[in-house]
Amino acid sequence: MIRAAVIGSTGYAGIELVRLLSQHPEVELTAFTSTSYVDQPLNEVYPQFGKQFNSPCVAEDWEKLVENNDVLFCALPHGHVAEKLQPQFLEKVKVIDLGADFRLPEASTYEAWYNLPHPQPLLLPEAVYGLTEWNRKLVSSTRLLANPGCYPTATLLGLLPLVKADLIDISTIVVDAKSGVSGAGRGLSLDRLFTECHESVKAYGVANHRHTPEIEASLATITDIMIPPISFTPHLIPMHRGILSTIYAKLKSSATDLENVKSIYQVAYENEPFVRMLPKGIFPETRYVKGSNRCDINFKLDSRTGRIIVVSAIDNLIKGAAGQAIQNMNCMFNLAETLGLEGAPAFI
Amino acid sequence: MIRAAVIGSTGYAGIELVRLLSQHPEVELTAFTSTSYVDQPLNEVYPQFGKQFNSPCVAEDWEKLVENNDVLFCALPHGHVAEKLQPQFLEKVKVIDLGADFRLPEASTYEAWYNLPHPQPLLLPEAVYGLTEWNRKLVSSTRLLANPGCYPTATLLGLLPLVKADLIDISTIVVDAKSGVSGAGRGLSLDRLFTECHESVKAYGVANHRHTPEIEASLATITDIMIPPISFTPHLIPMHRGILSTIYAKLKSSATDLENVKSIYQVAYENEPFVRMLPKGIFPETRYVKGSNRCDINFKLDSRTGRIIVVSAIDNLIKGAAGQAIQNMNCMFNLAETLGLEGAPAFI
Amino acid sequence: MIRAAVIGSTGYAGIELVRLLSQHPEVELTAFTSTSYVDQPLNEVYPQFGKQFNSPCVAEDWEKLVENNDVLFCALPHGHVAEKLQPQFLEKVKVIDLGADFRLPEASTYEAWYNLPHPQPLLLPEAVYGLTEWNRKLVSSTRLLANPGCYPTATLLGLLPLVKADLIDISTIVVDAKSGVSGAGRGLSLDRLFTECHESVKAYGVANHRHTPEIEASLATITDIMIPPISFTPHLIPMHRGILSTIYAKLKSSATDLENVKSIYQVAYENEPFVRMLPKGIFPETRYVKGSNRCDINFKLDSRTGRIIVVSAIDNLIKGAAGQAIQNMNCMFNLAETLGLEGAPAFI
Amino acid sequence: MIRAAVIGSTGYAGIELVRLLSQHPEVELTAFTSTSYVDQPLNEVYPQFGKQFNSPCVAEDWEKLVENNDVLFCALPHGHVAEKLQPQFLEKVKVIDLGADFRLPEASTYEAWYNLPHPQPLLLPEAVYGLTEWNRKLVSSTRLLANPGCYPTATLLGLLPLVKADLIDISTIVVDAKSGVSGAGRGLSLDRLFTECHESVKAYGVANHRHTPEIEASLATITDIMIPPISFTPHLIPMHRGILSTIYAKLKSSATDLENVKSIYQVAYENEPFVRMLPKGIFPETRYVKGSNRCDINFKLDSRTGRIIVVSAIDNLIKGAAGQAIQNMNCMFNLAETLGLEGAPAFI
Repeated sequence: MIRAAVIGSTGYAGIELVRLLSQHPEVELTAFTSTSYVDQPLNEVYPQFGKQFNSPCVAEDWEKLVENNDVLFCALPHGHVAEKLQPQFLEKVKVIDLGADFRLPEASTYEAWYNLPHPQPLLLPEAVYGLTEWNRKLVSSTRLLANPGCYPTATLLGLLPLVKADLIDISTIVVDAKSGVSGAGRGLSLDRLFTECHESVKAYGVANHRHTPEIEASLATITDIMIPPISFTPHLIPMHRGILSTIYAKLKSSATDLENVKSIYQVAYENEPFVRMLPKGIFPETRYVKGSNRCDINFKLDSRTGRIIVVSAIDNLIKGAAGQAIQNMNCMFNLAETLGLEGAPAFI
Repeated sequence: MIRAAVIGSTGYAGIELVRLLSQHPEVELTAFTSTSYVDQPLNEVYPQFGKQFNSPCVAEDWEKLVENNDVLFCALPHGHVAEKLQPQFLEKVKVIDLGADFRLPEASTYEAWYNLPHPQPLLLPEAVYGLTEWNRKLVSSTRLLANPGCYPTATLLGLLPLVKADLIDISTIVVDAKSGVSGAGRGLSLDRLFTECHESVKAYGVANHRHTPEIEASLATITDIMIPPISFTPHLIPMHRGILSTIYAKLKSSATDLENVKSIYQVAYENEPFVRMLPKGIFPETRYVKGSNRCDINFKLDSRTGRIIVVSAIDNLIKGAAGQAIQNMNCMFNLAETLGLEGAPAFI
Repeated sequence: MIRAAVIGSTGYAGIELVRLLSQHPEVELTAFTSTSYVDQPLNEVYPQFGKQFNSPCVAEDWEKLVENNDVLFCALPHGHVAEKLQPQFLEKVKVIDLGADFRLPEASTYEAWYNLPHPQPLLLPEAVYGLTEWNRKLVSSTRLLANPGCYPTATLLGLLPLVKADLIDISTIVVDAKSGVSGAGRGLSLDRLFTECHESVKAYGVANHRHTPEIEASLATITDIMIPPISFTPHLIPMHRGILSTIYAKLKSSATDLENVKSIYQVAYENEPFVRMLPKGIFPETRYVKGSNRCDINFKLDSRTGRIIVVSAIDNLIKGAAGQAIQNMNCMFNLAETLGLEGAPAFI
Repeated sequence: MIRAAVIGSTGYAGIELVRLLSQHPEVELTAFTSTSYVDQPLNEVYPQFGKQFNSPCVAEDWEKLVENNDVLFCALPHGHVAEKLQPQFLEKVKVIDLGADFRLPEASTYEAWYNLPHPQPLLLPEAVYGLTEWNRKLVSSTRLLANPGCYPTATLLGLLPLVKADLIDISTIVVDAKSGVSGAGRGLSLDRLFTECHESVKAYGVANHRHTPEIEASLATITDIMIPPISFTPHLIPMHRGILSTIYAKLKSSATDLENVKSIYQVAYENEPFVRMLPKGIFPETRYVKGSNRCDINFKLDSRTGRIIVVSAIDNLIKGAAGQAIQNMNCMFNLAETLGLEGAPAFI
């Protein structure tokens, strides 16, 4: 059994980790930490869990957590993990960070977008970006896993086959993404009140959302192609879970053949358990992936404009956070990648 | 392995049966029938299911289904099962009916509330009402199981300890229940359009909802006490899943001691895996039970009015339909009652 | 023109007052105060208002407000108005308090339910409870108007005809009410986050909600009948606006004639512009009254149980707060009661 | 008084017309027609309207309607008005068509996108596209007004200043729009059920939505610039009302100066009562315009990508349908354009 702890278990990503890890046949959950709820049973913080998870949240004691576990899942605000993680910890434990600290290869990019000097730049070269489908080999051997952000996951899975196959003019990429409110976390703020976000939609972080450089850098790293700045605009949707990413790009003139594009996607994903190309004419809806670790994708070639429109959908808390983290853990521990992540999701 | 089929698999209760049965370690799902979608793969009707359930829906052929299965789950409109079910079928197969045909012990009550002569009155004495927690012994040996309605399940689990222990004046029972829209089914009708039921709440079936006689008859059968007519009013809530039942009754003067009432509930449910008494001051919310087979209950003694107020919550599609049906199947086949029904539900 | 100010304009009731008063042909809005947003233009706090309301919120200066206005609308947390309101102010200005400070005739009841000594008990005898339809005469001549709570408004309009006509056994009254989230106000708290109250329903304040004594005392005052404690349970519904009150009571044996009950309601409300008895078989839905100052009512006699079930619906922010306050102002200033409150509400 | 009738009054656009026209000080509403609800009082079809609109819906009799009115508002499925409208009718009555029949200048474009020969191509040259802010002069003198579609309204108001001022490379325009469910109308279909569209978001009509040629043709007509095909993708959002349009385009190199772009928008809209440029950093949310005839707009220059991102928001049933139709009527009858369309909208 893999001994695992969740650091930061009472936010939405953290609690989803606890829930999914508890169903994993090869994991023993040793501890869940919390800052706000130390000593309180987790099923009091989340009464959803009935008689399960009745042990108390513990305070965050890294020395002890490192000692007692094979893997640490961190679901903390950015800056926090990089500050606490000592390089020597990695000799004893694997770390899967759901935050942003180790996702960008360059400390300077981090500093520019997060307005914060990177606390651990020396660890950056060791960190592996855990978009499992495209980075499996590196994932399997790393000790420090940077779990992708929710928007980058949906967007990269849709874009990578096109970029890798050189089908699109990468200077024309526009990504318009839509997310449920759980993506904003559990902190108190006026704009997360039911009365302030129900029955409405808005754009936010226009031209400055921090997932933009993550998408750009990951595209570049994975494809080994220089990627110019892309446009990325997230929107807030009055629903709990789900991200839909709508991606636009000009097709290269050599690349307007439908069958060709289809086969590029098919080759990329036909053996992937967690990516599904939808049949012709059926476009992703976030309800189709809610509760699952799946990414649904479809596309359309628009001969009028010479563009391809790709739509991809994930559950932001699962494939966009906790589920992908476990998929990566499976990979890092040489388990079947789907372990603990199967099971049909609820349909509503 | 138990060979099982779902008759009527494409409605909301039916598809939830398919989903849950597919995760049951002792069940082999042999077929799912449909009227509207014959020959269409089920995962085309519900794209939620990804690559699972890609075999086609079959037409409803009872002879064949009886031949090929150990148990048939029926999720059909009322009247339908009673019409198709031949008594000799029960010699070959167990039947679990999620509809209303065998829930009322008297054919005359059925006829009065459903405006329909009962098509199979001779089978009524054999049918067992599957509120598992209160009818376990009969459930375990029946061939014909009438799975309780969603409102009755939530209401009876809240009321039965009080009635059985003679704590309340049963002539004063008032039940005010609230349900998500999935309870209304998947049929097309104006009042189920998003634009006609979102952002609104209403009462319906005032003083004539068909779950009223079911609650009355089941209370009577299970407690062996004569039950006078009770007031039951359902309401429609703009959400997918969940029933909350708020129950009011006058306490008998001998029964106003908090510790006494508490211990009555405790004795009733302390060993029940699917019923949870919430701690003092925490009242059920439907989100706490969404995705689970659990019923959460709490109550308050109101010394000002001499009433007890009991609040119970279930997921209408699980404990109120498919989950309880599987709980009953487990019981009928001598399996652990929780088999296939564990797993922490999603928290949002 | 009536010079009016809104004290506490940036909460949901306050802003609804501002909105409605701005459309009133006989009102000049002189000022809106705020604690959190002093000096900030109101249309920055609520960008909904476009180019309207671009003057800044002012600090709460009672002396000045009293000097400059004919009427003050107060939408403040309980305790606040009673503390600030000096008796001599009422010689210069009329006060309409949307809070709870002057709704209960007895200071002792206030103290028991609000855990607070009443700061101005000497003003209580002067205060008039502004359920306009039932208290019009007193309202028209008062200087201190206690605007009813949202739940009491819906409930009293449904109950009063029955109590006044002695049709029901008042010891059997049970009120089960459902409210949208705006009723909880704009303060930050975990349970008002979208992610914590969407897709769920719950009871709260079970057997101890502060609107209970208000309903009891107002029933008694208006009908001059001794009212025993009643059961009142509010529920939270995932929608913005609306209250639905479902009321249960045993009919007196002399009072079970449908035509009789119908005519009692008809006599009570046929000339009321803001109360509508729905036709037979059509029950209130909160969407029918959203955006209007109307209360919709219907009832059913249940001969099986001997009970009447009354359902009433209002928009909690209008008839349950700001609209009724303006209706009362119209009455206090001898204007047509409907002035500024007509106009068809949006249908969705 | 202007005598007006609404043809097709029981759909969502039609009923919004009835509601708004009833509040217009210069309009007498003579009739509302319906196909499904002939002879039924309109306030039975929409109980929202209380005691208002209690006259029955009438059948569609064009001869009579032409005879009795000064203006006809048509809210019918496409194809219908063009079929019924005889050229000579326009000598007696003005026609405002909320449908698509007269929006496209070329019959051939209509036929290509609507798969239908245009029934009245000879009337096309006379029809004026009623995007009031940009076509006021022609609107004021036409007899046949084509009221813009909801998506085109939001999109054109955001795009036109840029195109007209030659600030962007028009070959790079990408429009990603999000709409509430009311835009899909009141017809029964599975995908409009609450249970099938709540808690989800999807793209639809990808690369083939019929509002695409309307946007292109109107851009061209209004600016007199040749417009290449643009990319337009609509999305369905689980809310009642509202459209948010997010528009992307490459800035011409000569046009990257913020103050310049700002002043272009300012000049375009500073005197427009129904268009508001939001202050820096505040982006439109659909709740800000819900219930109003306003369009809110803001933009951001993204120096990294050389793109401008424009976000615009409207209430799809008001500025996107009924409200703009009335704004056009005001213009056609020489009334103040804001007449009947003022009034602060509700904030939730």
